[in-house]
Amino acid sequence: MTLVRIWCGDQLVATLSPLDRGLAYGDGVFETIRVVSGRPVLMEYHWARLSASCVQLGLPDLPFWRLAFATFLTELKPDSKDGIVRLQVTRGVSQRGYLPDPNALPTLILSWHAPSEYPSEWSTAGIEITQMDMPLAIQPRLAGIKHLNRLEQVLLRQDLSTAPGCQEGLVCDTEGYVVEGVFSNVFAVINGQLTTPSLGRCGVRGVLREALLDALMLQNIPVNIRDIDAKEMATATEIFFCNSVYGIWPVARWGNKTWQVGPLTRQCQLIVSPWFVNNA
Amino acid sequence: MTLVRIWCGDQLVATLSPLDRGLAYGDGVFETIRVVSGRPVLMEYHWARLSASCVQLGLPDLPFWRLAFATFLTELKPDSKDGIVRLQVTRGVSQRGYLPDPNALPTLILSWHAPSEYPSEWSTAGIEITQMDMPLAIQPRLAGIKHLNRLEQVLLRQDLSTAPGCQEGLVCDTEGYVVEGVFSNVFAVINGQLTTPSLGRCGVRGVLREALLDALMLQNIPVNIRDIDAKEMATATEIFFCNSVYGIWPVARWGNKTWQVGPLTRQCQLIVSPWFVNNA
Repeated sequence: MTLVRIWCGDQLVATLSPLDRGLAYGDGVFETIRVVSGRPVLMEYHWARLSASCVQLGLPDLPFWRLAFATFLTELKPDSKDGIVRLQVTRGVSQRGYLPDPNALPTLILSWHAPSEYPSEWSTAGIEITQMDMPLAIQPRLAGIKHLNRLEQVLLRQDLSTAPGCQEGLVCDTEGYVVEGVFSNVFAVINGQLTTPSLGRCGVRGVLREALLDALMLQNIPVNIRDIDAKEMATATEIFFCNSVYGIWPVARWGNKTWQVGPLTRQCQLIVSPWFVNNA
Repeated sequence: MTLVRIWCGDQLVATLSPLDRGLAYGDGVFETIRVVSGRPVLMEYHWARLSASCVQLGLPDLPFWRLAFATFLTELKPDSKDGIVRLQVTRGVSQRGYLPDPNALPTLILSWHAPSEYPSEWSTAGIEITQMDMPLAIQPRLAGIKHLNRLEQVLLRQDLSTAPGCQEGLVCDTEGYVVEGVFSNVFAVINGQLTTPSLGRCGVRGVLREALLDALMLQNIPVNIRDIDAKEMATATEIFFCNSVYGIWPVARWGNKTWQVGPLTRQCQLIVSPWFVNNA
C-alpha cells in the first residue's frame, strides 16, 4: 500500500473529502519530487515553483508544508528510500460553485511512489520522438505552473502511446510554436546556440529546466529563451528533452532525421549529473 | 453533513482514494443536476452529455451509473428533496503518470447540495453583465464537454466577483469570439435572428442550451449557431444567459448599453418554464 498523508490546513486527516476542490475543478497544483536515499532532489526549485504557482492561482502558501514534507520523509521505510513523492496542494473543501471560499483551509496531500525506471540507453544513445498532432491551448493565466488541470497531457500521453518506438513527442501550441514534450521540457541547438521555448503562453516550467538554466548562466553558457516554430526546430543540430525524474534524453531520431548526441547536450548532461548520481 | 456516495466501478466504497486521477489530473467529467421534489430535471440531456463526454475522453460509460443515481435519489430525506446533485465520473485510481490504465475501474461520486438561490428579478427584469478580460483557451479536443479541468472558470469567477453589480460576464476565446458566460451559455438576437456560439473550439455545451435548441427546432424557430465576435454581440437587440440551475437571465445592462427584455427572450423563457416550475 502506498504511503499517503493528507492535511487540512495544518491538521492531519484520515481521508480526502470527495468535496475537495482539487477533485471538483482541478483547483490546485502539484510537484513530482525525486527522492534518492531519503533525500529530495532539487527541492529548493520545487518549493520555489510551488510558491510561484500558489501566487498565480491565489492559493495560500503555508510554511507548514515544509515541516509536513520533512516529517513525511522520516516515515519512509529504510528499505524504500528511493522513489517519488507527489506533493499536491488544493484550495480545500468549500461549497459547490466556481467561486473559492477565502476561508477554506488548503489541502496538502503527500504520496510515495516507486521510482520510474527507464533504459539507460535513452540517456546515452538518445530517444526517438515524433511531432504530436494535438496542440496545447494558449492560456497565459495558467502558463508555467504545474496545476491539476492536466487533461491535455492525459490525451497527449495516450496519443504518444500509439506512436510506435517513440519515447517522447514534440508539442506545439495552437499558433504553431514549440512548447515542450508530453512530459518534459525541450532544448535545442539552433544556429549554434542553445535555445528553449519561453513558456509564456502555455507549458510547464520544469524544475530541471530552471535548475539547468541557472547552472548554464553561472557557467556563462548563453541560452536563448524565445519562441521557436516547429520548422525551425527541425533545423536544430542538437535536441534534448529533460525533466527532474529522468534527467536529459538526447533526441537521436525524429521522422527520417537522425542525430548523434552533440557536445552541448553532453555538457548539459554533465551539469545535471550531480542531481542524478543514484539514477537507475 | 452532505450526502455523498462513492463507487469504484460498481462497488460502493467508504472513501475517495487520494490517488484518484480525478484529483491528480482532473481526469474526469461531471454533471450538475437540478432536483425538484425528488425528481431530476432534464436528466436525459445530462446522461447524453455524460456519455458524449466519456467518448471524447476515452472513459468507460457504465449503465450501472443510472442505477446508482436512481438509488441515490431514494436516499434523500423527505424534507430535502429540492437541491442539486453533482454527478462526477473519473478515470479511477491508477499508477502515477499521465497514461491511463485501461484496466482501472472508473469512480462515480454523487453528492447532494442545497438549491441555488437567486433573486427572481434576475429572471424577470434581467441582469447586468460585463465583458471579461481573461479569454478562454482554444482546445477542440476538450471543447463542449463538462470536464474537471475548470481552473479557467475558477479564475473567471474570481474576476467576476470584483466587477461591481454584475451577475454574469461575457467570455471570449483567445481569437476574440464570444464563447459563453462564466457559468452559463449565451444567446443573442442579432439582425432579428436568435444566435448562439458554436462551441467547437472551447466552452461547455450546457444542458439547458441543448434542450432549448431542440425545443426551438420543434417549434420551427430558427437558431443560427456560429462564431460571434464581441463587437457583433454589442449590436444585439436581445441577449440572455442560461443554465439548467437558474433558467434564463435576460441582459438588462452591459456597460453603458441597456435593454428591455425582448420578445424572443420571453418566448425562450416560456419554452423552458416547464423545467423551472418549482424554481425558487
